[in-house]
Amino acid sequence: MDNYRNRWLWGLIFLVGVVGVNCTGSSPQGSGNEGASPSKIYRWKMVTTWPKNFPGLGMAPVHFAEAVRAMSGGRLLVKVYGAGELVPALGVFDAVSQGMTQMGHGASYYWKGKVPEAQFFCAVPFGLSPREMSGWLRFGGGMQLWKELYKPYGLVPFMGGNTGVQMGGWFNKEITSLEDIKGLKVRMPGLGGEVLERVGGVPVLIAGGEIFTSLQTGVIDAAEWVGPYNDLTFGFHKVAKIYHYPGWQEPGPILEFIVNEKALQTLPQDLRAVVQYAADAVHQIMLDEYAARDPAALEELIDTHNIKIVPYPEEVLAALKKESEVVLKSLSERSPMAKRIYDSYFAFKKRSERHTRITEGAFLDAR
Amino acid sequence: MDNYRNRWLWGLIFLVGVVGVNCTGSSPQGSGNEGASPSKIYRWKMVTTWPKNFPGLGMAPVHFAEAVRAMSGGRLLVKVYGAGELVPALGVFDAVSQGMTQMGHGASYYWKGKVPEAQFFCAVPFGLSPREMSGWLRFGGGMQLWKELYKPYGLVPFMGGNTGVQMGGWFNKEITSLEDIKGLKVRMPGLGGEVLERVGGVPVLIAGGEIFTSLQTGVIDAAEWVGPYNDLTFGFHKVAKIYHYPGWQEPGPILEFIVNEKALQTLPQDLRAVVQYAADAVHQIMLDEYAARDPAALEELIDTHNIKIVPYPEEVLAALKKESEVVLKSLSERSPMAKRIYDSYFAFKKRSERHTRITEGAFLDAR
Repeated sequence: MDNYRNRWLWGLIFLVGVVGVNCTGSSPQGSGNEGASPSKIYRWKMVTTWPKNFPGLGMAPVHFAEAVRAMSGGRLLVKVYGAGELVPALGVFDAVSQGMTQMGHGASYYWKGKVPEAQFFCAVPFGLSPREMSGWLRFGGGMQLWKELYKPYGLVPFMGGNTGVQMGGWFNKEITSLEDIKGLKVRMPGLGGEVLERVGGVPVLIAGGEIFTSLQTGVIDAAEWVGPYNDLTFGFHKVAKIYHYPGWQEPGPILEFIVNEKALQTLPQDLRAVVQYAADAVHQIMLDEYAARDPAALEELIDTHNIKIVPYPEEVLAALKKESEVVLKSLSERSPMAKRIYDSYFAFKKRSERHTRITEGAFLDAR
Repeated sequence: MDNYRNRWLWGLIFLVGVVGVNCTGSSPQGSGNEGASPSKIYRWKMVTTWPKNFPGLGMAPVHFAEAVRAMSGGRLLVKVYGAGELVPALGVFDAVSQGMTQMGHGASYYWKGKVPEAQFFCAVPFGLSPREMSGWLRFGGGMQLWKELYKPYGLVPFMGGNTGVQMGGWFNKEITSLEDIKGLKVRMPGLGGEVLERVGGVPVLIAGGEIFTSLQTGVIDAAEWVGPYNDLTFGFHKVAKIYHYPGWQEPGPILEFIVNEKALQTLPQDLRAVVQYAADAVHQIMLDEYAARDPAALEELIDTHNIKIVPYPEEVLAALKKESEVVLKSLSERSPMAKRIYDSYFAFKKRSERHTRITEGAFLDAR
């Protein structure tokens, strides 16, 4: 746990120190073409928004690199860089877009300042479940829209994992009514933060590595990060005792691999396929990792650390849901592209909700 | 229905075309791999328990063949055979075990006569959800047990897709109490059928292709097959008007790729990795396919065909759940291996249930 906190801190230190001198070693595949030599070795760099080897999130890049190495017989070698090693966490999009590195791993909502529409491809409050999300992307038109959105930046997106439905967050004081949220400083990024603000909360944006100290010193009153597996690693249970659910703000965020389009085109056809299917396989592997690790971590939080697991009151969820609709509608009005994505996403959601309710939902109730 | 039939035909025509191109136009990329000649072309046969190109289930083998062809640069070519083309549907296990073909695609509960323990690796009544199931297999010890179970048969298993939580089945008369199940002839295979029998029902074993006629002529009173997407294809809505949920009997059956161990060992390392990751990717692709197609089919069943979608009464679900525990306990006592799998499965389930309830479950309730 401390180990991971340290890694994250080192990442941040790196981030400050290394920015600006990060290009020295990068040599993207520049020329190449279709008829590339079959024995040519491609050496890629992947920058990421996580500390290297960070449980779950940071393992996807590692699993991807291993998958492509093994499947290509060593012809495509991807070196993974943690946040801050080559570029800062939030510099991944630009680094890959500009061809400084061939690929990156992160989450699309980190680029909302540059591409607000990208938020639809990660975590939408009260949105699609993890399974619905990848169903929409692969067979519901979502992936085409995502590709179209990133095209002007010279990037090709691939699904890169999913944490599953997250938890609602850590609180020092139990939320019993909407009133309790008023003025509450909560670490909650993205659209969730915007929704929280509309019901009177104060969203605070701080990096994962700073949450523990901020909670401990009272800089913030509450924080959401991921779920039991990652939260236990950070030790939040030492400084907050109430763990609210469900994670209405991130019901199964999709992570992303982004690949520089020109770099992808330099690869022979077989290696392009290797990249695509490796991403698909790693997506499933991350889901499985959280499916196995989260329940064990939850057990430890409850049985060993006596954490109180409490649902949000219905009144609070209802208000958050209502404001989510306003925030998403507003996002849809920011551009014609935002409107197209919004329409596709919500048409799929409307149709899926009924089905999910009588299959997955009804089954979980009956079990 | 006709539409689907046409798609099948086009699928067949398309497939014939693609296979033809594959064989003549493959230009393998050398792997520089240890052992076997890098340019050697491996031609495999895959027998399956489904009609070729059958929506969802039968597409996994097709997607797999395409994935390995693309990733291997044509060095591993897998020809897919529908049920009955080379061997009957239920002959797949033996065919691959005996090395008649290199691989197969099906569902492990079809081999229960030969390997009763295999039923744990497909559909367990009131068992793990689709996500929990692959979490257990990959990170909870399940896959090691599955490999150990198939080892004496010279087979290596891989996850090969999942339909998601199925529906409860088609009935001519609504089930309103446990009494209504007494004497009812229901097409329900596997452990679900055994459970049904214990509450007074009469499980009938007939192949998918015979369900429609059997329902129409009254040979059976009810039938479960998969879910809206596959059921609509078969046209069950024309001969039954009540569609019960949830699919307690198959809450997310795992499909399987089985590979003859000796055939796998003849492959160079890179192609073995290609087989593994292609299976992982295709697993996710099938989940996505059902996630997108099932809701659309459900909409059509409700809005166009006026099918009545009805939950099983609580009393009935409670009785089925109780008897499921008896059936599974009894299965666990059939061999030391069955006991080991049972213990691993239920330890994972117990731990997962609490987590799934407060994440996926609570989120679906709140949405």
